[in-house]
Amino acid sequence: MRFKSQAELEQWIAQNRQAPATAKLHAKAERAPVPVNPNLQRRILGIDTALRTTGWGIIDVRGKILKAVDCGLIKNPPNSPVSECLKRLLGGIRELVQLYHPDTAVLEGAFYCRNVHTAMMLGSARGAVIASLAEQGLEIYEYAPRRVKQAVCGFGNASKEQVALLVSQFLHIQTDHFLLDTTDALAMAITHAQELTTTGGFGVPKPL
Amino acid sequence: MRFKSQAELEQWIAQNRQAPATAKLHAKAERAPVPVNPNLQRRILGIDTALRTTGWGIIDVRGKILKAVDCGLIKNPPNSPVSECLKRLLGGIRELVQLYHPDTAVLEGAFYCRNVHTAMMLGSARGAVIASLAEQGLEIYEYAPRRVKQAVCGFGNASKEQVALLVSQFLHIQTDHFLLDTTDALAMAITHAQELTTTGGFGVPKPL
Repeated sequence: MRFKSQAELEQWIAQNRQAPATAKLHAKAERAPVPVNPNLQRRILGIDTALRTTGWGIIDVRGKILKAVDCGLIKNPPNSPVSECLKRLLGGIRELVQLYHPDTAVLEGAFYCRNVHTAMMLGSARGAVIASLAEQGLEIYEYAPRRVKQAVCGFGNASKEQVALLVSQFLHIQTDHFLLDTTDALAMAITHAQELTTTGGFGVPKPL
Repeated sequence: MRFKSQAELEQWIAQNRQAPATAKLHAKAERAPVPVNPNLQRRILGIDTALRTTGWGIIDVRGKILKAVDCGLIKNPPNSPVSECLKRLLGGIRELVQLYHPDTAVLEGAFYCRNVHTAMMLGSARGAVIASLAEQGLEIYEYAPRRVKQAVCGFGNASKEQVALLVSQFLHIQTDHFLLDTTDALAMAITHAQELTTTGGFGVPKPL
């Protein structure tokens, strides 16, 4: 399900709010079908990293079928010290990996940070997360925010709410009660799954 | 041993290169002695964090006596991926703490990074290091680079070589064959020790 403009997407959203969506995954009549490896099996952990609220979402990929496994948040109280936040991130990611055994992790590439202080803080959170993932042997990839929106919504300037709605369509789940950090994390996992399947893996970036 | 200007320090260095230094720690005849808690016992791990070459140095503090325990580098090959570097940092710091049981860690505050990309990379390394230290229950402090130079050399724009020489004087060790990342790390540990002792602990910053 791809849209050529935001107006087209919004129209589609308005229609689908009334009637439950019946759109199937990758149902693109206007495009020639891309051959997909039917034996492809991956469990992908998407992570929307931040110091205070880190969203995560896990999906299973079998051939071209995507299935949500679980999602949630690693939350840190707003007044807890930086070292405590990073410790909780490190431990939280380790617990997730030990519980669900994903083989691949996907992060948001933080290429567009303007402020040095923000970059340093976000960098710290990413450092703790990447170190924890690497220690447990996961392959780690990162995608630019625009690329995630492009892959899920069809255009790069979609809002987080639009991403959430399309995530619910891709995975056939209700996302109304999810926080947007969680749906963003699921969108990252979907992006990687799409790169693996729809382009035969040629669009997959170099692992971190 | 404090100097009022760089010229004065350089003169002192020139004199001390010929004759081995006999200067005693905190021998400041011109200052009134500051009362020091003689029961103060700390093992401080100083870390000069970077993604590729992280220097570390451990000192023992007993009353106002400082003693070097060990120092070295956590090195990452220049072409190894970021995730591998962060994993090695996380594991390296954990090994150090398990081997030497320091109770306090001191990092360089990265307040003056100008480039967003550098800030992100340095932030990642700091994130992995801080998470590893916090997980093992160490108290973590950070000092600005100028403050470290001020504490060790007496003025804030000392060169790394001058810091190395003064570290050798403080700890009564030969530092000629040490890399400057290592002596910088020892200087951080000395700075914290000085803040604990010479000002009765009032100059110690809030832990991270």
